[in-house]
Amino acid sequence: MGFPSDLEIASAAELRPPAEIAGRLGIPEEFLEPYGRTVAKIDLGILTAPGQPQEQRAKYVVVTAVTPTPLGEGKTTTSVGLADGLAQLGKRVAVTLRQPSMGPTFGIKGGAAGGGYSQIVPMDRLNLHLTGDFHAITAAHNLLSALLDNHLHHGNELGIDPRNITWRRVLDVNDRSLRNIVLGLGARADGVARQTGFDITAASEVMVLLSLSSSLADLSQRLRRIVVGYTYAGRPVTADDLGAAGAMAVILKDAINPNLLQTLEGTPALIHCGPFGNIATGNSSVVADLVATRRADIVLTEAGFGADMGAERFMNVKCRVSGLRPDAAVIVVTVRALKAHSGRFKIVAGKPLPEELLAENPDDVRAGIANLRKHIQIIEGFGVWPVVAINAFPQDFDSEHQVIRDLCAELGVKCAVSRHVAEGGAGAAELAQALIDALDHPTHFRYTYESDQSLVSKIEAVATKVYGADGVDFAPAAASALAAYEKLGFGDLPVVIAKSHLSISHDPALKGAPTGWRLPVREVRAAAGAGYVYAICGEMRTMPGFASHPNAERIDLVDGEIRGLS
Amino acid sequence: MGFPSDLEIASAAELRPPAEIAGRLGIPEEFLEPYGRTVAKIDLGILTAPGQPQEQRAKYVVVTAVTPTPLGEGKTTTSVGLADGLAQLGKRVAVTLRQPSMGPTFGIKGGAAGGGYSQIVPMDRLNLHLTGDFHAITAAHNLLSALLDNHLHHGNELGIDPRNITWRRVLDVNDRSLRNIVLGLGARADGVARQTGFDITAASEVMVLLSLSSSLADLSQRLRRIVVGYTYAGRPVTADDLGAAGAMAVILKDAINPNLLQTLEGTPALIHCGPFGNIATGNSSVVADLVATRRADIVLTEAGFGADMGAERFMNVKCRVSGLRPDAAVIVVTVRALKAHSGRFKIVAGKPLPEELLAENPDDVRAGIANLRKHIQIIEGFGVWPVVAINAFPQDFDSEHQVIRDLCAELGVKCAVSRHVAEGGAGAAELAQALIDALDHPTHFRYTYESDQSLVSKIEAVATKVYGADGVDFAPAAASALAAYEKLGFGDLPVVIAKSHLSISHDPALKGAPTGWRLPVREVRAAAGAGYVYAICGEMRTMPGFASHPNAERIDLVDGEIRGLS
Repeated sequence: MGFPSDLEIASAAELRPPAEIAGRLGIPEEFLEPYGRTVAKIDLGILTAPGQPQEQRAKYVVVTAVTPTPLGEGKTTTSVGLADGLAQLGKRVAVTLRQPSMGPTFGIKGGAAGGGYSQIVPMDRLNLHLTGDFHAITAAHNLLSALLDNHLHHGNELGIDPRNITWRRVLDVNDRSLRNIVLGLGARADGVARQTGFDITAASEVMVLLSLSSSLADLSQRLRRIVVGYTYAGRPVTADDLGAAGAMAVILKDAINPNLLQTLEGTPALIHCGPFGNIATGNSSVVADLVATRRADIVLTEAGFGADMGAERFMNVKCRVSGLRPDAAVIVVTVRALKAHSGRFKIVAGKPLPEELLAENPDDVRAGIANLRKHIQIIEGFGVWPVVAINAFPQDFDSEHQVIRDLCAELGVKCAVSRHVAEGGAGAAELAQALIDALDHPTHFRYTYESDQSLVSKIEAVATKVYGADGVDFAPAAASALAAYEKLGFGDLPVVIAKSHLSISHDPALKGAPTGWRLPVREVRAAAGAGYVYAICGEMRTMPGFASHPNAERIDLVDGEIRGLS
Repeated sequence: MGFPSDLEIASAAELRPPAEIAGRLGIPEEFLEPYGRTVAKIDLGILTAPGQPQEQRAKYVVVTAVTPTPLGEGKTTTSVGLADGLAQLGKRVAVTLRQPSMGPTFGIKGGAAGGGYSQIVPMDRLNLHLTGDFHAITAAHNLLSALLDNHLHHGNELGIDPRNITWRRVLDVNDRSLRNIVLGLGARADGVARQTGFDITAASEVMVLLSLSSSLADLSQRLRRIVVGYTYAGRPVTADDLGAAGAMAVILKDAINPNLLQTLEGTPALIHCGPFGNIATGNSSVVADLVATRRADIVLTEAGFGADMGAERFMNVKCRVSGLRPDAAVIVVTVRALKAHSGRFKIVAGKPLPEELLAENPDDVRAGIANLRKHIQIIEGFGVWPVVAINAFPQDFDSEHQVIRDLCAELGVKCAVSRHVAEGGAGAAELAQALIDALDHPTHFRYTYESDQSLVSKIEAVATKVYGADGVDFAPAAASALAAYEKLGFGDLPVVIAKSHLSISHDPALKGAPTGWRLPVREVRAAAGAGYVYAICGEMRTMPGFASHPNAERIDLVDGEIRGLS
């Protein structure tokens, strides 16, 4: 009899009514909009309603990781298990997470609702439509696309240069054949032919824009500022110019309300927005964190990929927008990830781990531990306390964990082994206590750069101070675009570095903590509506594809029950 | 002070809780899944749950119309107002309607929630996402598309002929530039290049398939049978062959549950599915009608366009699937439509009516009344009692209504003037009584054709017996496709004739009741999953476009309130 599947565990769970879960955060039922019996949206009016708390009271903790393998290192399970562990210690806790993208659910990867006994439920709703936010984002995004091509069709009064349109279309499906298309074919009434393509909805600027909005009014303003392309004269064309922003806001008016779900142990989980971790922020919404931090003792929020990726953007972009300050960062590490950073193994998603990697070998861990050391330094660079969470697997050996504990002792950093996947919140007890101890220390949070620095110096600051690069090489097109953005008034925006998540550098082959390298910026783009400029280093895939036999083939509905979802 | 706008009236409404509305049909609260405070889904389990009614008890009434002008003649307002009028006379009533498509809401046309004091509420939810069914249909449809192109990409084991793929993609947006696209451009990893396009979601076979499914198991079977194209050897390739049907069913598992909304007067309204009225059935779902007819005294259901279009498919396709039998048909007529059928005026959507059409002129009505006479005959041809509903406008004259009353008196058909838009249910009192009187008569329902007739003879039967054509001319491609479908086992399916809704013939220029014409069938296609074969007569537009200044430009969110939706 094996360990039950995630779906089996989730399906067996007895869910509490949303009103009871909300009550654990003191959220009155009048602010809940039910979506089915087990999910509710929280009305954003709660942030400004008289009599409701208006100030941060919670300790605010970001959950990040070492540089992950393609399998992921269990940040979501750790966030969930740790939240349940803290709840077991009597804390009023909330966990805030991204909503998983539906497209990959049908691909090689399962859902992203945690796993084992550290899951968010209802698992099927979470992995499918939830409350329709992603669908609303798709609809708002594509309405703007349609209005843009409609403008070209009806005479192009604004003088938009069809060769300089940056706004694409989106769908929440893994569909590689939509990456590059020519549209507007057919007869005269069928639009203007031009090349463009589709991204997955998680890569939509509307997604990250929504995640960074702090109110409906702020959302409307950001939508107006979206730049869809440029005129023949080089002037940016905005969603406002096309008269699209108001209708987009109407489409998104419910999507801005965070979704209240629960862990298997009944801890409140706010699931909201899921911006891509490469070209976007990889963080859940500002509004969910504003709601949660005014009510809980401790709020855990997960940031995508390693500390160089999601956590850096959490600090420099999300916290800058929200005004919230982190009190600690949990760095999730696994034995297999550090062994991979030794450079001695190759891990491929969807394939079994190499046999040799599973053998007891503390030396392999030691050979890769520079990666963890670097991520600890990255967090400390923000003036935030790190806590190292060893996400234990059944195949791990104590001797291997000891290598990690030794490093943490050397650095004076708290460290704990967590067995939340197998044991739920009880398995995270040591980690929960380590975090509580760390939160006793005051933090001295600082950004990597200030808003009034130039875009070039912001990118250089992240590359050198966070990643440890020797410097940045800007391709000519990137340099001239940055100069143009400064003139267009985008110079005050923060930056996002779009690079591989499989290395602290831009090169996925460089494991551990690379030194003696420079960051090559090939291209820069403005996400003017969301409110950042992003620098692209290498190829960024914004529309996944399916394998030859994707998970969709194994998913079925039998007597009304879902099979094969994972 | 003018008449208030639809949005103003709808926004001022005090909505009752869904449980109270459901209670009016005796639906226990345990079968309701709330979606917000004012909308619920009805769990389909109610159809088979022990202790719940399993037999039809209601009188079942289809609401149809004369051949409409491009403005529409008020079938939805009449359905809603009549339902409220019947409720005021003490009847237990439910009205079942299609869900409006979101795309056109942002175009020239407003929403489709009725109008004035005969509306469905909440109006904004109805016109936007409602409970996400259309989004789920979009997702299921496009997952199949992605799996199809993925199959081509990974070696095309099934031998699908890329020139003979009939399955396109869908989005719920007016986007003419997506009608014809080439996808799969780019590098080797970006799929196989081929030409295809997008339809609006309402035109998806998944939409009509869902509307014709009577249970989750039936849905799954229909999904498996969807034909996406043909192999080089000419064999049909199904969603089942691609391993897609199970995942599609999982995506649609909540979308099959009908949505419970309410009229402004609190009458239960089941809003479910919205298949296109030209290439599909133009009728709301079978399951909504099954739920409603087991509980109400009278169920009103609206069928799209004139009696030659939606009502014919209601009788020959929807009722054949559901097993339900209609007891009466309400034919909505307006003075302006009959004047238009005189051939003396031109009515264009989005433009004011011609001045001369608004002048008192019973002769113009008389000149167009052959159209109403023909629609009455069409309904009588099914053995169903017609009731003529004159949807009165403030500009109408009694002398003009009298022309209609005179025809009905001549034909022995009940007729009533209804002023529900201005007055709500009270304005439909005369019509409600006329319908109640008509329902005293027994009906002798008969289909236009039997399932075991050939596809050719089914098409000929509809053309000659319903439309009054002299015969059918099949283009060679259509004839050979019909022969092929008979061999493939599609011969038992009912047929849908895809033709203009602006004439009883295929030619929108032929007003009134055309005679001496033959129906030209250019092409036939199989909707094998939905379960019908459709014959295409003329150009069918399955993806609308926006005007140069669409309604989207006037829609905005101001202090959290929607403006400009209509």
